[in-house]
Amino acid sequence: MAEQNVPYKIYLNEKDIPKQWYNLRADMKNKPAPLLNPGTLQPLKAEELAPIFCEELIQQELDNDTAFVDIPAEIQEYYKTYRPSPTIRAYHLEKALGTPAKIYYKFEGNNTSGSHKLNSALAQAYYAKKQGLKGVTTETGAGQWGTALSMACAYFGLDCKVFMVKVSYEQKPFRREVMRVYGADVTPSPSMSTAIGRKILADHPGTTGSLGCAISEAVEVATSNEGYRYVLGSVLNQVLLHQSVIGLEAKAALDQYGITPDIIIGCAGGGSNLGGLIAPFMGEKLRGEKDYRIIAVEPASCPSFTRGKFAYDFCDTGMICPLAKMYTLGSSFIPSANHAGGLRFHGMSTILSQLYHDGYMEAVAVEQTAVFQAAEQFARTEGILPAPESSHAIRAAIDEALKCKETGEEKTILFGLTGTGYFDMVAYENFHDGKMSDYIPTDADLQKGFDGIPKFPGNEF
Amino acid sequence: MAEQNVPYKIYLNEKDIPKQWYNLRADMKNKPAPLLNPGTLQPLKAEELAPIFCEELIQQELDNDTAFVDIPAEIQEYYKTYRPSPTIRAYHLEKALGTPAKIYYKFEGNNTSGSHKLNSALAQAYYAKKQGLKGVTTETGAGQWGTALSMACAYFGLDCKVFMVKVSYEQKPFRREVMRVYGADVTPSPSMSTAIGRKILADHPGTTGSLGCAISEAVEVATSNEGYRYVLGSVLNQVLLHQSVIGLEAKAALDQYGITPDIIIGCAGGGSNLGGLIAPFMGEKLRGEKDYRIIAVEPASCPSFTRGKFAYDFCDTGMICPLAKMYTLGSSFIPSANHAGGLRFHGMSTILSQLYHDGYMEAVAVEQTAVFQAAEQFARTEGILPAPESSHAIRAAIDEALKCKETGEEKTILFGLTGTGYFDMVAYENFHDGKMSDYIPTDADLQKGFDGIPKFPGNEF
Repeated sequence: MAEQNVPYKIYLNEKDIPKQWYNLRADMKNKPAPLLNPGTLQPLKAEELAPIFCEELIQQELDNDTAFVDIPAEIQEYYKTYRPSPTIRAYHLEKALGTPAKIYYKFEGNNTSGSHKLNSALAQAYYAKKQGLKGVTTETGAGQWGTALSMACAYFGLDCKVFMVKVSYEQKPFRREVMRVYGADVTPSPSMSTAIGRKILADHPGTTGSLGCAISEAVEVATSNEGYRYVLGSVLNQVLLHQSVIGLEAKAALDQYGITPDIIIGCAGGGSNLGGLIAPFMGEKLRGEKDYRIIAVEPASCPSFTRGKFAYDFCDTGMICPLAKMYTLGSSFIPSANHAGGLRFHGMSTILSQLYHDGYMEAVAVEQTAVFQAAEQFARTEGILPAPESSHAIRAAIDEALKCKETGEEKTILFGLTGTGYFDMVAYENFHDGKMSDYIPTDADLQKGFDGIPKFPGNEF
Repeated sequence: MAEQNVPYKIYLNEKDIPKQWYNLRADMKNKPAPLLNPGTLQPLKAEELAPIFCEELIQQELDNDTAFVDIPAEIQEYYKTYRPSPTIRAYHLEKALGTPAKIYYKFEGNNTSGSHKLNSALAQAYYAKKQGLKGVTTETGAGQWGTALSMACAYFGLDCKVFMVKVSYEQKPFRREVMRVYGADVTPSPSMSTAIGRKILADHPGTTGSLGCAISEAVEVATSNEGYRYVLGSVLNQVLLHQSVIGLEAKAALDQYGITPDIIIGCAGGGSNLGGLIAPFMGEKLRGEKDYRIIAVEPASCPSFTRGKFAYDFCDTGMICPLAKMYTLGSSFIPSANHAGGLRFHGMSTILSQLYHDGYMEAVAVEQTAVFQAAEQFARTEGILPAPESSHAIRAAIDEALKCKETGEEKTILFGLTGTGYFDMVAYENFHDGKMSDYIPTDADLQKGFDGIPKFPGNEF
C-alpha cells in the first residue's frame, strides 16, 4: 500500500480491541526462571503467594503455557473508554529529521493516568473485586501506577490504599491530588500507620522514603487487614500479560496498512511497557516466523541490561519480596539523580531478562540530557509532550532514524510512547535550567550493588 | 439505528476533518454589532486594526457574510495530529446517574495544550507566518491559551512572546514550563520590559497582575516591534470561526449514527468553545431547519449572561481595547475567588450575546462546589479528569439528565468537554480541603461594575 495512504493516526475500531491477552511465555523455549522463596530457595507455590496476591493473578503469574487469556467483559468495557489507543505515523518528526526512515509510535498516554499502567491496573482491580476483596494496597514512586490503580478502583468500587514515597508525595502534590479525586487513600511513606514504617522512622528520623520501604508498608497493610491484597504495577509476568494489549493493537493497526516494522523500540524500567509492546512481534520471532530488531532503552544512570548481572536477586531494596532471576544491579543499587522515576528500578522483568539473555533482543543505555533533547524535539514537531520515561525510546528511535539518513535505508521503526509528561515538568525545568545530572555509575559504584546480590549454589554470576 | 450500535467513542476518519470553517454570522438575521473605536465611537475599519492584528484575521473578524472559509492545507496537516477529536457516549456516567437520557460529549482535551484553544492558535499562527511576520504576542491567565499558542508557533517557526499574569506565573510554574518546552518567551506581567508595565509597577508596587494589564503589555510589544502582531484566544469573531471545527466534527459524528441532540450544552467564558460547539446546530436553528435547546453555562461568580447588561463595553479592564456590544458585568468587575480561570471574563462574544439577546439560546449559572462535585463524579465514571471550565458544562448536563430521570424522558444531550484539569489540581485540592468559595455577587457588587460601562447615545441599558 502506498505510503501516502497511511493516516497520521491509525485508530482501530472499538470492536477490534483485543479480546484476549497474549502470554509470551507460551512461545518461549527457555521459560523465565521461577520466583524463589528467599528462605527455602525453592520455587514459590501458589499457596505461599495467596496471603499477598489475588488468586487469579497468581495463576496468571505462574502459567507459562497458556498462550491466550480471555479478557473479562467488565475489563473490556472500561478499556473502551481509552482504547484502542492510536498508532501514529510521526510524519512531522520524520520531516524535521530529514530521514528516509518511517517512524511509528504507539501512544498510551491518552488517559488520565497518563500512561499504559491503566491496562494492568484495571485487570488487577477487576480480579480483586471478583475475589470479593474490600480493597488493594500498593506503592507508588513517580505516581503513574498509583494514579492508574486509583482510577481502576474507583471504577470497580474497591478501596485503594497507596503508599507514596515521601519525597514524591511532597514534590508531586498534583499526582497525589489526582489520586484523591479518584477516592484513593494516599499515605506518605514511611508512615506511622504500619509497624515497619514506625521502625524505619525510629531508625532513620527524617528519611524521605524509598520504593522498598513503601512496598514493605503496602504489603504489611495488605496482609494484616481482612479482605485486602497487595498489587504491583510492573516487573511481574501477569503485568506483562495485561500489557500485551499494547502490542496486539499496534500490530493489528500496522497489519491493516501492510506495514512491517524493522525495528521495535521501548523504554525499559521494570519492563511492563516494553514487554507489552513487543509481545506479538516477539512471539513471531520466537516461533521463527519473522525477524525484528528489538531494542530495550534504559537510562545510563540505571543500566540493568547493559551493565547488570543475570542472577537471582531481591525485587525490592527491603529484601522482603521473592527472589527473581533477572538482569540486576543489586537491590541496594541507588541510581544517581534521574527524573525518569519509572526507570530507576535496579532489576528487570524475568521474561525480558531471559529473552535478552537468549539473544532475542538488544539493549542500549542513553544519557539524561540527550533524552530531554529528544523529548523537546518530539514535543515541538509531534505536539505531544512526552514523559521522561517514554523519551528514552524517542531518543533511540531518533538515533536509528538518523542512521538511516546516513545510509539512505528506508527502515520502518515502531516505538512505544508510554505516556505524557504533564506531571513531570520539574524535570523539564531542570533540563532548561541546566540542572540535570548525566552521571554514569562507575564500575566501582556498580560493584557495591553486585556485592549485595545473594550468593548461593546456582546463583553464580 | 439501535442504541447498542453506538460505540463509546465515535472517531471520524482523518479525511473527515472539516475542510472549511463555518461562519455562523452568515446565517444570523441580526448580525453582531460591530466593534467601535472608543475615541470616535465609529465602527472600526480594517486599517485601524492593521497595526495590532494580522491582515487575514482582520478580514475574518469583519466578514459577516461568507458562510464557509477554507481551512488552509498547512493548518489541516497539523489538525491531523490531534483531530478528529472523539465524540464520546457517556455510558458509564448514564449508568451511575440511572438516567434514561443519552449523554454525549465532544472531547477537545487530547492534546498537550489540554484544551480546544489549539484550534484557533494554529490558525492565528499560520496567518501570522503567511504575512511574513517574525512573531506574535499574547497574554495568558490560566495558561491554556498561552500553551496552545506556543505549540502553534513552534510548529510554524514563529517567535512567541507570552505575558502571563504574575499570580498565575508564580502559582502555575508547570504551565510556564510547558510553554518553555515549545520555545515561547514567557514574562510575568506586569513586567519592567514595557512602558505600561513599568508604570503599573511604579503606581502599584507588589501587584500580582491582571489580564487587563497583560493585554496592555502584549499589545505594546506587538505595536512597538517590527514584524510582530497581537493575537487573542477567545471572544473575537475570528476565534469562533476557527472553533467551528468542534461543532462540525461533533455533528458529523452524530449524523453518522443518526443521532440528533435535543439539548446542547457548553461552558461560556469568552465564548470560543460554546460558539464553536454550537455553530452548525445553531445554523440549522437560524435557518429554521431544526430546533435545539442550547444552554450556555457560566459560573454564578461571574454571571455575564444571566445577570449582565447587553451594552457596548471595553473588552479589557485596562480600557485600551475596542468597544464591543455584549453581555457584560462591566470591565472593572472582578469575580470572587474562582478557579475556573477561563470563565472569569466580564464580557462575552458579541455573536453569542446577539444570539442570546434574540432568544436563540438559554443560560444558566452554577456554583463552584456543585461544579466540582460533578467534575469528580465524571472523573470517577468516565475516567477523564475534567478542567474546571469544562466541569460547568458537566454540571448542567448532569442536572438535565437527572430531570430526565424524574420525567422518564429519553432526551439526547450533547455537551462540550473543552479540556483536562491536569494543570488545575490546586483547584481540586481546595475542593477536597473545603476551601472553595461559593460567593455570588450581590446586586450592589454588580452595580459597581455596571457603573463603569461607558454611557453614550445608543448605549442605554
